[in-house]
Amino acid sequence: MGWPTEIECAQERINGHVRRTPVTKLDGFGLPVPVEVKLEHMQHTGTFKARGAFNTLLAQEVPEGGIVAASGGNHGAAVAYAASKLGYPAKIFVPEMAGSSKIALIERSGAELQVVPGAYADALAAARAHEADTGAMQVHAYDAPLTVAGQGTCMSEWESQGLDADTVLIAVGGGGLIAGAMAWLNGRRKIVAVEPQTSCALNAALSVGALVDVDVSGIAANSLGAKRIGQICFDLAVEQRIDCRLVPDDAIREAQIALWQQARILVEPAGATALAALMSAAYVPEAGEKVAVLICGANIAPDPMT
Amino acid sequence: MGWPTEIECAQERINGHVRRTPVTKLDGFGLPVPVEVKLEHMQHTGTFKARGAFNTLLAQEVPEGGIVAASGGNHGAAVAYAASKLGYPAKIFVPEMAGSSKIALIERSGAELQVVPGAYADALAAARAHEADTGAMQVHAYDAPLTVAGQGTCMSEWESQGLDADTVLIAVGGGGLIAGAMAWLNGRRKIVAVEPQTSCALNAALSVGALVDVDVSGIAANSLGAKRIGQICFDLAVEQRIDCRLVPDDAIREAQIALWQQARILVEPAGATALAALMSAAYVPEAGEKVAVLICGANIAPDPMT
Repeated sequence: MGWPTEIECAQERINGHVRRTPVTKLDGFGLPVPVEVKLEHMQHTGTFKARGAFNTLLAQEVPEGGIVAASGGNHGAAVAYAASKLGYPAKIFVPEMAGSSKIALIERSGAELQVVPGAYADALAAARAHEADTGAMQVHAYDAPLTVAGQGTCMSEWESQGLDADTVLIAVGGGGLIAGAMAWLNGRRKIVAVEPQTSCALNAALSVGALVDVDVSGIAANSLGAKRIGQICFDLAVEQRIDCRLVPDDAIREAQIALWQQARILVEPAGATALAALMSAAYVPEAGEKVAVLICGANIAPDPMT
Repeated sequence: MGWPTEIECAQERINGHVRRTPVTKLDGFGLPVPVEVKLEHMQHTGTFKARGAFNTLLAQEVPEGGIVAASGGNHGAAVAYAASKLGYPAKIFVPEMAGSSKIALIERSGAELQVVPGAYADALAAARAHEADTGAMQVHAYDAPLTVAGQGTCMSEWESQGLDADTVLIAVGGGGLIAGAMAWLNGRRKIVAVEPQTSCALNAALSVGALVDVDVSGIAANSLGAKRIGQICFDLAVEQRIDCRLVPDDAIREAQIALWQQARILVEPAGATALAALMSAAYVPEAGEKVAVLICGANIAPDPMT
């Protein structure tokens, strides 16, 4: 099967399990024209990650050992939620940098949680050891076809909701979301990848022409701080010659504040990163170019309701 | 002109000045069926109030003395924003209970702000004195035909976006928003008015059969704490025999937490009050009855982004 079919199958699988998130057009943000947005932060567990999680769990037989996942926090929350809804045991490994909000979110789901010293890569190593020990099914956060196909439904859904933009800006961590978008759109619309300057695994890989490790830090690191971009994402980005832009932390923070002050959309830094590229002019649309921004996550710390 | 025409005229006036806010359907909240919501808290200045404010300022010639309004906070912010966008000077009177977030919001608009000891009624008295002194145009928060017609566009817009529900639940303070909805729907769908137990001016008036003053307090009082329901709202509610339900503060708080935890919608207590009636079973839909909730305001204190 090609990607579009994989994504259509994913959509059929996850129907009724995930939300069809709303789309709208927003003026403001110091931009000359309104920007289309998809409010994917209103998805179950606060990010698009529920799409890939449900697709993965519904496409295969789950072994007796249950489910295991490593995560900066958002993927783990989504896998824990999907496992709980489908009645499977799950163990989630997160690094300390996941932060209190995301850890509490995973705990509320009823999954078994282990906090690992270090960053995402350390949590992934622990999850792989657990997989080897128990036979649990590993749900990769971004570099697995079922994950990518699940995240791809975000873009296919947006098109079915009347997406009008020429260009869609998407924040990149490990690259699962943008890989799904590239896989679906296949060049029909322009995609701009946006990464924090301090967590830029895709940009580094595209510069070198191969997967390379990067250091990760900054305010969006617990969502976007993959040390190495996913192979699936990298291959699609090379093939489609994806435009990749970097934004500094202060631009992300400014966009995060603007989303709240101007539209009462409260997101985590990763959720504001794509908009930051427009607001800071890291990406400047041409005259007449219509742009869209995917609002991808809202698991902010501290949690405003605790 | 009848109300539907007034509301259509209001919509034409305010087009391009206010946002067409998104609608969606949400599962969860412990409810047996999904509930339709309109995310009107994403309106400019965080509530539906921008609709009435723009309609009032655009329908009449504004005198040299400019604009004056009294407000628990949200109406004042909307009037200040509309005046600023249209280039008029504005003076806004708010009671102390408006709170820091709403006061900061009005200050950011550039309007002149005066904080008055006491509650909304005291701010209104001060605004009337200013009107008498200066000839400024008074923009009433809820009991004026242009305000009601402006707020009515919220419901006409929702119907144009495919509202499916049999029944719409709406929080009531002074009654401007629900009056607009009653004026537009004219009995075509059921409307349920929801008030906090501790700020229930409509319920009190309907019980007595006349406008009466009530004491106001509780977590939603700086939005919904009108001492007396508006005459326009009262007359429509009597004529249409509107069903009015009361909810305690803890139910409002629970709905506010649920909106954030389950859908990343962060609202002030007033914005969660209509949902609280469903979640607490203050209103129980009949089997097969489809329900909708208007999410009306998000000017929460403390401001999560300051």
